[in-house]
Order: sequence, then structure tokens, then C-alpha cells
Amino acid sequence: MTGSPDPFGTHRSLDPPRALPQTAWRLDANPRALENEIAVSVRALNIDSASFRQLRETERATGETVEQQVLRIVGERGKMHNPATGSGGIFLGDVREVGPAHPAARELRPGDRIASLVSLSLTPLSIDRIHAVFAASERVELEGTAILFERTLWARMPGDFPEEVALSAFDVAGAPATVRRRAGIGETVVVIGAGKAGLLCLAAARDAVGAAGRVLAIDPSEAASGRARGLGYADEVFTLDAREPITVRDAVHRATGGRLADLVVNAVNAPGTETASVLAARDEGTVLFFGMATSFQAAALGAEGLAHPGTLLIGNGYVPGHAEMALDLLRRHPRLRAAFTALSGVPTP
Amino acid sequence: MTGSPDPFGTHRSLDPPRALPQTAWRLDANPRALENEIAVSVRALNIDSASFRQLRETERATGETVEQQVLRIVGERGKMHNPATGSGGIFLGDVREVGPAHPAARELRPGDRIASLVSLSLTPLSIDRIHAVFAASERVELEGTAILFERTLWARMPGDFPEEVALSAFDVAGAPATVRRRAGIGETVVVIGAGKAGLLCLAAARDAVGAAGRVLAIDPSEAASGRARGLGYADEVFTLDAREPITVRDAVHRATGGRLADLVVNAVNAPGTETASVLAARDEGTVLFFGMATSFQAAALGAEGLAHPGTLLIGNGYVPGHAEMALDLLRRHPRLRAAFTALSGVPTP
Repeated sequence: MTGSPDPFGTHRSLDPPRALPQTAWRLDANPRALENEIAVSVRALNIDSASFRQLRETERATGETVEQQVLRIVGERGKMHNPATGSGGIFLGDVREVGPAHPAARELRPGDRIASLVSLSLTPLSIDRIHAVFAASERVELEGTAILFERTLWARMPGDFPEEVALSAFDVAGAPATVRRRAGIGETVVVIGAGKAGLLCLAAARDAVGAAGRVLAIDPSEAASGRARGLGYADEVFTLDAREPITVRDAVHRATGGRLADLVVNAVNAPGTETASVLAARDEGTVLFFGMATSFQAAALGAEGLAHPGTLLIGNGYVPGHAEMALDLLRRHPRLRAAFTALSGVPTP
Repeated sequence: MTGSPDPFGTHRSLDPPRALPQTAWRLDANPRALENEIAVSVRALNIDSASFRQLRETERATGETVEQQVLRIVGERGKMHNPATGSGGIFLGDVREVGPAHPAARELRPGDRIASLVSLSLTPLSIDRIHAVFAASERVELEGTAILFERTLWARMPGDFPEEVALSAFDVAGAPATVRRRAGIGETVVVIGAGKAGLLCLAAARDAVGAAGRVLAIDPSEAASGRARGLGYADEVFTLDAREPITVRDAVHRATGGRLADLVVNAVNAPGTETASVLAARDEGTVLFFGMATSFQAAALGAEGLAHPGTLLIGNGYVPGHAEMALDLLRRHPRLRAAFTALSGVPTP
């Protein structure tokens, strides 16, 4: 681990030195790629919502524009890591230089359009000039250089999807990829939440369990459950609030003849759905928590309190190949693609 | 699910009816066991620390004694579920009546001494009389009746352990039981945190990986790491702070010749150790989070940010047979038993 630059980028951390880049206050944003790095000509930053909102509030309060704040923060920190919110965002750009020791050295060429899949809060960035700030899409168009480390996730932007749709798919790609790994032929999968992640999970679940398996969907919204019903992946779709564990358990109990689910996928953005997720799984089953509102404590203590010995998984946003797998799912399922595109919205500059 | 009383006890929920007992404001604490319930003559409540502290503060502020508050809360709610803290505790008692449809009907006899392993916040309780309140041990000795549902966890109190030691072992029993399930012969296991749970996990890990495997321990305290070293389960013990992920990664990297761990067990009570836990595992490895200070978001986003595809598990406090397995581990390892007993303290009435 000495000699060559660190796969996680700790060699770029200046303050404190050798910290993980997300932890460091300041990064070395030198725009030349080291042997295991990629330098990218950045075209745009999609700023994290919480961060963008805070920048706008500061603009109103102090008169320092969003543009000036971005230049100041990146100048001070070597990354667009909002010190007030702690959050970042992602960037889009064109590959400029690929270090010969980077794992993608044979795969990426200068000019390839890519997006970073990890936060700007750990990505070295230098800015040459800002062209425009688009408040509605929380987007900053600019010229600059970002550095990707050996272990920084990125994805090639596809030619056949609108940018917003591709980025939405990348954002939730870990969920369907994990469902595909965890669900087996003939099994029963319950997907709680029929938003963008939930819809991809339903399609992945149907692929994985086959015609002999069962797929159930649960969402409290009439619109979302109607959309899920229309796609046809689920054998049954329940319009139910997953904050009511007994109602959910009873529905899954009835629909499975008392067997309950082999795999429960929590893809809900609201808190308080851990217990329903646990109760929908059979004792030997697995609960996969992808909703970012999940409470570790509620899941762990909930299962213990119910004497439920199921396997509880923290959804890992990274599964090798997950970005390409999500796009592939959308390409193979035109109706899913239409529904997903509608949910992803269109950038409004 | 209609007709017979619910395994989770929803039939005892009065307000709202059919809620899970933990959620319900008030339970029916009728002391007769239904067909799938156990009635227990309660001898003592071990009140949760947060709850007991709050009861004492109320006593100082209002003059209503802890005893009076316990009687009032149990009278109002049918359970010792402190409305201010939301927490409960556990009870000790002697079995009085086992319903014929309860799964333990052939195993438990009237007079058997047991402890509940789930919270008083979901356990129907009626009190006949309070004998004494012991502030130092946060214990209330009384006569009353508690009800265990079909799925309520309980454990038989062993004759060969002090009560405090047995209760401490039950408290952390899920961790070593899961280690034993997840670790295989010849594998490398890293245990972070050498408290009571960590020590049991070290012994379970050594049992599971055998002489061909490797066990590493990490704890920031000299005393704790010295204690772990003295027990001899770990091939190496590092005195390191797991809030410093790079230091931990480097140590595990060196100790494993770059292979890293197949299984990392987080048994730390302090926050901020998720990233170190992820970085100590190899890409195909598993991280088992048992520390209750774990943040779901830090674990999920940390793994994604590091492009680490490992399996992330929420430690489930319930594994069938875990309580007996923890006692068995202590019985077979006299030096572990001595260290564990010292850490469990002795009740001071």
C-alpha cells in the first residue's frame, strides 16, 4: 500500500493527510491523473438537493450567489463538499486521461461520456469557469476537472436514454441487482414501495423467480399501486400502508397461504416500515432494506422483539455491474421503461 | 389467524385493538394464560436504564416515588412501558401456567425459573404488590403476573451462573450465535470491539474457523485489548480506534497478507466505526453489524462510496437457541467465563 497511489484516494487528502477523501477537509485537486486515476473534463454538477437548497438560502441571506459559493467552496476544499450540509451530488463529463494502472484503462477512452456514481463530497474537483446555474434542476454547468480514484464508481452515459433517466436508474441500480442475486426460481418476493427503485425490483424479481414464483407489491398510494399493477410483474398488488405491520402481515399471509415471503425488499422512502418488512418474511427468509429511511435499531430490535430469526440485509448501493444491469432491465422491458421515464421527470433548465 | 390468539399477542392490545403489543398504548393484562400463552409469577423487574433514570428524576421533581410510578404506569398501560422514554426492561419469574398450544408446553413446567428476553414494553403485566426498589441495580422486586405470547423470547435461568452473568450473556447472545453460523473452517474473522459481545464472538469465531483459520481482534482500550490477548482466541490483537478506517484497514491488510477478512463483526458501542468495518472485509466478504450505535445510512453509503460490494448484515438479536448457546460457550471456556463474569458486575441491592 506504499509507493503507488491509494485505490480509495487517501493520497489526495491534505487535511488531515491520509484521511479518506470524504472525511478530509481539503483535497489536492491537481487536474493531472496519477497512474491509477482518471481525469474527467466536467460539464455539469448535479448538486445534492439539501446542498442546493442551503446555497440558495445563503444567497438570499448574504447576497453571495450560488455561483460564487460553488467557486469559493471548491477553491477552499478541492471538492464540492458543502460544509453546511455535508453533502455533495454527482458530476457528468467526458474522460480526458486514464492512468495506465486504472482498472478501466482498456475500457475507457478519452471523450467517453461518464457520470460519477459516488458523491462529490469525496471527488477532487477544480473549476476553470462556471457557465450557468439552473435552479430548477439544481444543476451547475461549468468547465473543470474531476479525478476518479481506482475505487470510485462511475458509469458510462448511455446513448439511448435521456440523461435524467439514466441518472435515476444509476441512483437505484443496487436494489434490482441485489434482488436478482438473492431471489431464486420459484420463490416468493414481496416488494414494499412502488417508486423508481420498487418498480425495477419488481421486474428483477419476476425475472428471478420465474413463472413458478410469486411476486407481491405493496404501496400506500393508489397511483403507485395502480402503476405497479399495470406493469404486470406482480401477481398481486396491495394498496396498503407499510407503517401498519399487522395489516401487511395479514395480506401477505393470505396471499401466500401462510408461507410468507422468501425475500422482502424494502424500497420505501418513509420511516417506520421495518416491522412490516420483517413480518412479511418467513422465519428462514431475508429482508433487504434499501429504503434510506431505514433505522438500524428499529430493524434489529424489531426482529428480536418478534422472535424473528430472518436474515436482515443493509442494501449495498454497489453491486458490480449494477448500472449496466439497470439499463438492461429498462431496455428489455419497454413498459417499465415508459413508467420509469415518467417518474424520472425531465430536466427543466 | 382468526379464532386462536395471535402468536405476536395482538389479541391483548386494547388501544388500538389488534396493534402490535409494543405499539399499543394499553394491553389486557388478565393474568390467566390463554391456550398459546405462558403465565409467569414475576419476582423482579430489571428496569431499562433510561427508564429508571427518568423515574428517579420524576421522583425528585414531583415526589411521586418510583414504586408509585411503576404501579401507576402498569395500572394504566397493562405493561411497564415508560411513556417518557418508550423503553421497558426485562423480568425474572417462575412459570405458573403453560397453555397447551404454546410451543414450550412440553418443555416448561410450573416452577421453572425463566427470564423474558424481550422488552417489558410489549409484555402484559399485572402487579399484586411491590416489595422493594433497588436503585443501584435498577431493580424492582414484586409479586405479579406477566404473560408471554407464543413468539415472546424467554430463557431458562441456569443453576450454575449468577443471575447477572446469565442475563448479560442472554443480552448479547445473538452475536456469537450468528458468528458461528456465518464463519467457516479456515476463514479469517475480524472482531471489532472486545467488550462482552466481542469476547463471546472471539471464542465463537475460533470455534468456527478452527486452527487453520485466523481470528483478529481490535479495540481502542489497552485494558480490553489486553484482556482479549490473554484469552488466546485471536491470532493478533490490535489496540486501535475503529473510528480511524485507514489505520484499521492497514492493520488487517498487513495481518492477512492483503486478503482481508471473510467476516467482520462489529461489536462496538461507539458510533463512527462503519467504514472501518467495511474496509476490513474483502470484496466478497460479510460485515455483521451488532453494535447498536450502527447507522444504517453510514454503513450503506460507506460501502457504496468505497465501491465495496460486500454483504452487510444487520445483527439479529434472535437466533434460535442463542441463549443456551451463549451459556454453553461460557461453560466450555473457563477463562472466557471468568473474564465475562468480571465484566458483568455483581448486583448491588
